[in-house]
Amino acid sequence: MLTEQKMKAALQQYLDGFNQQDADAIITLFADNARIEDPVGSEQIVQGKEAITTFYKGAVKVVERLELDTPIRSSYSNYAAMAFTIHMVIDGQKRVTRAIDVMTFDNTGKIIDMKAYHGPSDSAQPQL
Amino acid sequence: MLTEQKMKAALQQYLDGFNQQDADAIITLFADNARIEDPVGSEQIVQGKEAITTFYKGAVKVVERLELDTPIRSSYSNYAAMAFTIHMVIDGQKRVTRAIDVMTFDNTGKIIDMKAYHGPSDSAQPQL
Repeated sequence: MLTEQKMKAALQQYLDGFNQQDADAIITLFADNARIEDPVGSEQIVQGKEAITTFYKGAVKVVERLELDTPIRSSYSNYAAMAFTIHMVIDGQKRVTRAIDVMTFDNTGKIIDMKAYHGPSDSAQPQL
Repeated sequence: MLTEQKMKAALQQYLDGFNQQDADAIITLFADNARIEDPVGSEQIVQGKEAITTFYKGAVKVVERLELDTPIRSSYSNYAAMAFTIHMVIDGQKRVTRAIDVMTFDNTGKIIDMKAYHGPSDSAQPQL
């Protein structure tokens, strides 16, 4: 049965996976035909296990760490959400992005949809 | 034109409206046929200006203050999101709820959809 605790643990595992550079720990959270829109509005849709695997194998390489900004939220149904800050290094350039992700789960506890909300004004390139 | 700045200003006005107990400042942010799902999964859908007016006129009476937990996020399209903590007093009982709201905007900058993500485990009744 899907519980709030299970959804919150999945989002925590997502963060931990990035912070331990363990892409497999992230990828295993997703259902086979899951859909990722990151960022929302970019029209960059990542769908299916193969595309998701490629996406996260690449992402863990540029993300230094994810920092949870406030405790993970769940819902009265199959959604959970979190606000966090992404610390990246891309081509030697530091980049910080503030995001809110909303995840939809199936009844077995796998993520079937992920939407990442952040716009241009949520990113900055701090001085190293 | 809808801009990130306009969406972020709307979400800030939403917070300020609660903190100033000014329901009208909140209600004016919504389009006539807007839809509110608060909390998501509750099946309590509030739709249309009249229902929204009743909803927020009541809400400002029980909310002591909304506290933004981390800066408001926007998106690459017509969405913005924020993580915040709701401090309420209901029948003399203090209640604290952590929520993430996702708002969808029309092209004129009015909110057409609001989804509030929080579950039972996101609320607590602290000692007074």
